[in-house]
Amino acid sequence: MSISKLKEEVYKANIRLYQSGLVISTFGNVSGIDRSKSLVAIKPSGVSYKKLTPKDIVLVDLEGKKVEGKLNPSSDTKTHLELYRAFSDIGGVAHTHSNYATAWSQARKAIPCLGTTHADYFYGEVPCTRVISNSCISKDYELRIGELIVDTFKSKDYRHMKAVLVACHGPFSWGEDAEEAVEVSVALEEIAKTALYSMVIDPALDNIKKSLLDKHYLRKHGRGAYYGQKKDNKTGQL
Amino acid sequence: MSISKLKEEVYKANIRLYQSGLVISTFGNVSGIDRSKSLVAIKPSGVSYKKLTPKDIVLVDLEGKKVEGKLNPSSDTKTHLELYRAFSDIGGVAHTHSNYATAWSQARKAIPCLGTTHADYFYGEVPCTRVISNSCISKDYELRIGELIVDTFKSKDYRHMKAVLVACHGPFSWGEDAEEAVEVSVALEEIAKTALYSMVIDPALDNIKKSLLDKHYLRKHGRGAYYGQKKDNKTGQL
Amino acid sequence: MSISKLKEEVYKANIRLYQSGLVISTFGNVSGIDRSKSLVAIKPSGVSYKKLTPKDIVLVDLEGKKVEGKLNPSSDTKTHLELYRAFSDIGGVAHTHSNYATAWSQARKAIPCLGTTHADYFYGEVPCTRVISNSCISKDYELRIGELIVDTFKSKDYRHMKAVLVACHGPFSWGEDAEEAVEVSVALEEIAKTALYSMVIDPALDNIKKSLLDKHYLRKHGRGAYYGQKKDNKTGQL
Amino acid sequence: MSISKLKEEVYKANIRLYQSGLVISTFGNVSGIDRSKSLVAIKPSGVSYKKLTPKDIVLVDLEGKKVEGKLNPSSDTKTHLELYRAFSDIGGVAHTHSNYATAWSQARKAIPCLGTTHADYFYGEVPCTRVISNSCISKDYELRIGELIVDTFKSKDYRHMKAVLVACHGPFSWGEDAEEAVEVSVALEEIAKTALYSMVIDPALDNIKKSLLDKHYLRKHGRGAYYGQKKDNKTGQL
Repeated sequence: MSISKLKEEVYKANIRLYQSGLVISTFGNVSGIDRSKSLVAIKPSGVSYKKLTPKDIVLVDLEGKKVEGKLNPSSDTKTHLELYRAFSDIGGVAHTHSNYATAWSQARKAIPCLGTTHADYFYGEVPCTRVISNSCISKDYELRIGELIVDTFKSKDYRHMKAVLVACHGPFSWGEDAEEAVEVSVALEEIAKTALYSMVIDPALDNIKKSLLDKHYLRKHGRGAYYGQKKDNKTGQL
Repeated sequence: MSISKLKEEVYKANIRLYQSGLVISTFGNVSGIDRSKSLVAIKPSGVSYKKLTPKDIVLVDLEGKKVEGKLNPSSDTKTHLELYRAFSDIGGVAHTHSNYATAWSQARKAIPCLGTTHADYFYGEVPCTRVISNSCISKDYELRIGELIVDTFKSKDYRHMKAVLVACHGPFSWGEDAEEAVEVSVALEEIAKTALYSMVIDPALDNIKKSLLDKHYLRKHGRGAYYGQKKDNKTGQL
Repeated sequence: MSISKLKEEVYKANIRLYQSGLVISTFGNVSGIDRSKSLVAIKPSGVSYKKLTPKDIVLVDLEGKKVEGKLNPSSDTKTHLELYRAFSDIGGVAHTHSNYATAWSQARKAIPCLGTTHADYFYGEVPCTRVISNSCISKDYELRIGELIVDTFKSKDYRHMKAVLVACHGPFSWGEDAEEAVEVSVALEEIAKTALYSMVIDPALDNIKKSLLDKHYLRKHGRGAYYGQKKDNKTGQL
Repeated sequence: MSISKLKEEVYKANIRLYQSGLVISTFGNVSGIDRSKSLVAIKPSGVSYKKLTPKDIVLVDLEGKKVEGKLNPSSDTKTHLELYRAFSDIGGVAHTHSNYATAWSQARKAIPCLGTTHADYFYGEVPCTRVISNSCISKDYELRIGELIVDTFKSKDYRHMKAVLVACHGPFSWGEDAEEAVEVSVALEEIAKTALYSMVIDPALDNIKKSLLDKHYLRKHGRGAYYGQKKDNKTGQL
């Protein structure tokens, strides 16, 4: 894929994020990576979606050095880069402040898996990181957030759990490209919302049983998947 | 009715479901049946509503054999077929993951009948199935969900209760055709939402009294109905 | 005002109600009266807003006899007529199933006056009727609802409280014409929503003090009103 | 800046407020000041946003004397003027009845700072005034609200906390011009909403730690800010 194509895709994914209603003002950002060139395209910092153009997308290398673009990259760039370095199969990352997923992040709680809609997308609870330490806040904050996420996934498979809640902050999601990262954000907000409403009806609710989780997750993902039109289904495995 | 007309109607009902805001991405599906030919038209699996065309609608017989169409039918097809086999008067089935109805499903609770808006559409509490057993999950899952719904209606009349919540999953609804099935989905989401808000104000609320339920349900449905413009009213009896 | 003008106004008020998002499907209805001719124009029963035309508006006299129109009038017509008979200054009535006002109705609780937005429109708590008795349900139900509302206003001034919640049912509102009745419905839904959210934050909240209620209500309504552009303000007194 | 330019900007900010969905009907108002001429442009009272034109914007001096315009200025004008007098650097003020910020105002509670979205905009809890006293209600009410706000900021810096909740009433916000005042209103509603949802998940939640608040607020505001494109960022310091 050419770099201009990558920038175009990242631009489109950012616009789609905005149109989905998950972000307002200059909140949120989406990036995509060209693995062969180790270059990441990302939204510029503090630019409103209404004014964003494909030319504004900034290109950085995996160490964060700007390679192309007049504007500063997103202030969350180092978090994205850490994810690309640690999760070697992902091709896109999205970050939002969407209301319901952020509400769970602010409550510092994982989103329990209460139903099959959740299980269709996420293999179990969507985890929440621990609260970032003062020393991590004071030095290289955005990089430390990335490391905090990676640490949260020490015993989890990022290919089957494509989102995380950063405590006191908000969600990050990823996928095989920028488009899928946004799609996961949209699904995450939907399940965060429905989970909240379910808890209002019954605050004692717990995760669905493992057999039901397996059934739904695996009918859409993995080797025996039979949901959708075969390889046509982008929410399949990475 | 010709098969092409049925496919057109099922296509339109799927689009209406999408436009109503009850489904996002590829969630949900609507089907319709031609009883004379025992053929069911249904949304293809995993296709986004934005790209759906009437040609994509898949035709299957009541045993689930594909009769027409290039794409795979909805992964929930066997659930639809079980409903068509057991509920002999229905002509359409809809399934959504709409937020509020799904919240009740995930809480594994029937939606209590708290007011006349509910009573106008549903004759009593909207029932919730029991949680599906492990053996039903492991074999012919989608068929078993259909059977679970049918079992929930053993002592209920599906002609006066056109919706059900599948525990840990979401709602199914039906009607005399695909269009009415969607209309019931929309009404269900509305009453699920208002019931939730009512419970926030007073968690101890109970069903309205039978006399009021009867009055509202029967002024719209049944022999002495006087709501609407007589036979003009699609929400009448099946 | 000519009868065709009245019908046009009632048609427009019904359409505005629909566009405001307070009603879906065929829910709700708005009427207006010509006091000089004692004729009431009202939405036909069970007709969807999308298909409604000015010609469909039905004309009835104050005893409910149809004077003009091919369709049946709203099934709630007798409730409207009782309000016109008892509240001699009103010119329009609206009925909705809007989510938040209906949630309070279903909870059988008056909406407490928790802030100045409420006080700007309604002089105190928006009352909720008692639950209708079985004998009233069994005979002339819609008329009895009207009487129940009127009874709820025995010691209240309908000119300063232009809405009521019918227990287990939903809100009715009124004003000097159909347009104002709809405007009050919109304001009612807004304050019902905000009051619910306030109660989530603090379930022990009580009405604001009388001095603040008086200040806000009376700066918009009554003799010394100074809100708006004088007689220009439709939300003034009847 | 010419007076006609100021009126145009205030008109646009009012329209933006309306388009953002934060106000309905005639609720809310935005003003802007020309500090060199000590003239304030403000929305006229009780005029609906749909009918508002730039010509309708009223011009008053800092003592509230009308200088230009046919219509009465907003009934909240004296509150705006007190803010302009006390907060010498601000250039615009906005007042809304937006649902979630008003819910907190009605609950008479500051909005706790539960996450980084909040910290990006507001340096700590968004304060809530005390309930206005009877003597302040009875004389020069709108001026007294302004004084109440100013009193609430005795030990706070209005340049780093650009919004306040007036108890039992609703939010006021400000900024370097009318546009920023509206932008702060929009952000305030967003964080009020997410904070409410977080409290539903865990009612015992408390403010985030100071180190995290400082990190986020100061990366967008103040001397060492590195969010956005440098001086391009309107949400910087006043």
